[in-house]
Amino acid sequence: MTRNVPARRPQVRQTPDERRKAALEATLQLLGSLPYDEILVEDIAIAAGMSRPLLYHYFGGKDHLAAEALRWCGEAMVEAVLGAGEIGGPEGIRDGIRAYLDFVTEKTNWYTALVRHTYLPGTRTESVRKSIRVRIAEGILGLLAPSGGSTLLRLLVSGWVSQVETICREWLIDPALEKAAVESLLVDLLVANLHTGASRDHETAAALHRYSAE
Amino acid sequence: MTRNVPARRPQVRQTPDERRKAALEATLQLLGSLPYDEILVEDIAIAAGMSRPLLYHYFGGKDHLAAEALRWCGEAMVEAVLGAGEIGGPEGIRDGIRAYLDFVTEKTNWYTALVRHTYLPGTRTESVRKSIRVRIAEGILGLLAPSGGSTLLRLLVSGWVSQVETICREWLIDPALEKAAVESLLVDLLVANLHTGASRDHETAAALHRYSAE
Repeated sequence: MTRNVPARRPQVRQTPDERRKAALEATLQLLGSLPYDEILVEDIAIAAGMSRPLLYHYFGGKDHLAAEALRWCGEAMVEAVLGAGEIGGPEGIRDGIRAYLDFVTEKTNWYTALVRHTYLPGTRTESVRKSIRVRIAEGILGLLAPSGGSTLLRLLVSGWVSQVETICREWLIDPALEKAAVESLLVDLLVANLHTGASRDHETAAALHRYSAE
Repeated sequence: MTRNVPARRPQVRQTPDERRKAALEATLQLLGSLPYDEILVEDIAIAAGMSRPLLYHYFGGKDHLAAEALRWCGEAMVEAVLGAGEIGGPEGIRDGIRAYLDFVTEKTNWYTALVRHTYLPGTRTESVRKSIRVRIAEGILGLLAPSGGSTLLRLLVSGWVSQVETICREWLIDPALEKAAVESLLVDLLVANLHTGASRDHETAAALHRYSAE
């Protein structure tokens, strides 16, 4: 009986977790390269090597699958950045920036998917993109000002995180600068921003001191 | 005959242009204060003092009306900022920033509507928010580097415009700083960002020189 049916695809040997991951990766790949309306669940199923009914079984419809993929990807990115940066100080900040840039360059389609979908499909308010920014800003604030930081310091750090995102997006479009140059630029911009605040605010001055001393 | 019908509302004496403007303003007011899904065309009609059929006649459905209102508002904002800043130099940049902050504080609901709706309702790719950023960045580049500017200078200016938007949004949520303090902070951040680039790139150094000399 097995002899006459078409050869089963290799993916049937995957565990449920592997299947799930394959589907999420295929979804991100498409979300980063096509307008949302042009993506069909069928395409995702083919790219994931999975049947459409199985995809529906795991994730429900397209909106759910896309939202799940973006959440998963955002989580991976935040973990990579905060994990790399957790030692703190100039080294930690630089390692975090490097991890961010690694994500941007090694998973460009995923990054594009993240920044393109400001709000998750099927929602008008849930934003993985915003939550990445907030969590990275919180991570940096935790290093620079363990007691929470002043309003000014928070504005400066959030502003810098936005700056990083915009610079990376434009750099992907016009990659004239070397990765190492972007890395050192982003580090220096953070320091320049902190310097700008340090003359206005004790807590920003203390953060800059803590940053430089470590 | 006229005596027995209800008094007509004042708006019937408006010209078509005035009616249009009233409808756009009412739409922006609601877009800045309610989630999109909770806004009814009926509410906009009431707020604009206009019948629902007339509103449909002018603008089509809710998506079209919202998109039109956001485009109109973005245009008003860009004109205010670029108009104020067109003299160039430190004074021009400061005047442009002041116009931006005036818009943020005097038309807070409109600004909130603009930054909340990354993509226009009914579209997945047309972004007034992005076009505001791009046009303001182009305006600044036109002042700082009439010949177009290097890749690095463009990254720095775009990055700063994002920073401005993020700082303004967070400032609206936690308005602990005075408006004048935010204004001077934004000016100084631009200069600090240009300084960071100036040691790396001749054109950024020239832009900083041009900025400081005027």
